[in-house]
Amino acid sequence: MDGGLVRVRIDLAYEGTDFSGWASQPGLRTVQSTLEEALATVLRLDSRAPLTVAGRTDAGVHARGQVAHADVPLPAWKSQPELGALLDRRLPPDVRVQSVTAAPDGFDARFSALSRNYAYRISHGPTGPDPLTRRFVWWHRRPLSAARMNDASAALVGLNDFAAFCRHRPGGSTVRTLLGLSWRDDSDGLLVGTFEADAFCHSMVRSLVGCLVPVGEGRRPVDWPADVLSALVRDPAVNVAPPHGLTLEAVRYPTDHEMAQRASQTRRPRRSD
Amino acid sequence: MDGGLVRVRIDLAYEGTDFSGWASQPGLRTVQSTLEEALATVLRLDSRAPLTVAGRTDAGVHARGQVAHADVPLPAWKSQPELGALLDRRLPPDVRVQSVTAAPDGFDARFSALSRNYAYRISHGPTGPDPLTRRFVWWHRRPLSAARMNDASAALVGLNDFAAFCRHRPGGSTVRTLLGLSWRDDSDGLLVGTFEADAFCHSMVRSLVGCLVPVGEGRRPVDWPADVLSALVRDPAVNVAPPHGLTLEAVRYPTDHEMAQRASQTRRPRRSD
Repeated sequence: MDGGLVRVRIDLAYEGTDFSGWASQPGLRTVQSTLEEALATVLRLDSRAPLTVAGRTDAGVHARGQVAHADVPLPAWKSQPELGALLDRRLPPDVRVQSVTAAPDGFDARFSALSRNYAYRISHGPTGPDPLTRRFVWWHRRPLSAARMNDASAALVGLNDFAAFCRHRPGGSTVRTLLGLSWRDDSDGLLVGTFEADAFCHSMVRSLVGCLVPVGEGRRPVDWPADVLSALVRDPAVNVAPPHGLTLEAVRYPTDHEMAQRASQTRRPRRSD
Repeated sequence: MDGGLVRVRIDLAYEGTDFSGWASQPGLRTVQSTLEEALATVLRLDSRAPLTVAGRTDAGVHARGQVAHADVPLPAWKSQPELGALLDRRLPPDVRVQSVTAAPDGFDARFSALSRNYAYRISHGPTGPDPLTRRFVWWHRRPLSAARMNDASAALVGLNDFAAFCRHRPGGSTVRTLLGLSWRDDSDGLLVGTFEADAFCHSMVRSLVGCLVPVGEGRRPVDWPADVLSALVRDPAVNVAPPHGLTLEAVRYPTDHEMAQRASQTRRPRRSD
């Protein structure tokens, strides 16, 4: 609490289909502006309290375990003990607030996070995904080998410069720790890839999927993704997989008393050497 | 095959949200007319071949294992060995054809069926269903006891007159064999009810759900649904649960050589005595 403000942690989920992504953009329907507007209305704020988010999802990308924070005036916060339920009543059905809590000291939804966990879902059966799940499953028409994709994925895990899989941002580092990347073949031709990293740069998961899918098809050798990685430049042969197969599943944070330390550590620029 | 026609079995799935149910109705978007139109176009038929279906789902109800049949001219059928793929290309994304095959002798999608299997999905957590699944999960805001609902459900299984749970149709029997009815509490506050019967009368599953939910809440005693059943008339205290939680999951058929026998047996009027 600072200057009469309280930092509020919001856990939420959304279907990205009808949103132009998380981040506010003038004239577009985004998750951030939808939630900021609901928060300002329910708390009767004079101006919106800006939200900081753990994972800035792109247009069409979904979230089931997104985390955001906002600093709101203490009296407003105290006046609404049922804030989560009120927000849910105010929000459209494609965004759901799961919980709203006073954040522990030093909490920052973005910088305190230890890791982000994404899932990428691919239907590789001949008839396409179940129509009930088609909004969050990519229909790739050719069969894929999970075993080949797992072999190729293992070579990408670890502390690496992922420049080959990131949209370039001047001055931004592309060094990340990929903590885990694996594929499992569920029933009915549904293949689910699980990605965990300290953080992901822009379009990184979808570029990794786009590089691993040709390996799963057998069109590229198993060591191709590692070759692409080590080249350190974007390879035009790598397609970026479509957004609707991607879901932010969870964000991990340290224990409450390690929160501030983690945030100050993460704010330091990353180095690859 | 009869008179130059071949009976074709179509296995399909659909999201019911944007359909006015299965059965054709003038001026409305229905699954039947959408599929009949696609079939006529792909096979270049002069007029639509009418479809017969295993489960006539209501507006908003989904299907993952629906089965239909149509009788189509033999030359047209022979001209399109890739009929399933062609239909899928023609159909909107909320209907998927899983397979198209020449039906065995005596097959009738409706009358040969041994049983229909429906699932009803309820989110009974405080925050509502995952936004990714909200189109096929009913958000019931109060917590439900699966154990109480299972106890109440067990008393309904068997050969019964389900008049209390059916929309009345003059001359139609309401005697059905409910082969199974059970509830399981999945992770994240999702409760799934599984219903299997030789056949269901109109609105039967949704009426059963509407009668069992107050038991799960603790507002009604566990033996209330059995009392409603034995009264043989609709009880105004029973609400019909909303359609979007309901999905036709599967239809069971006998082995090929028993198909015709099953169809002629089912066509006989049901009796409860």
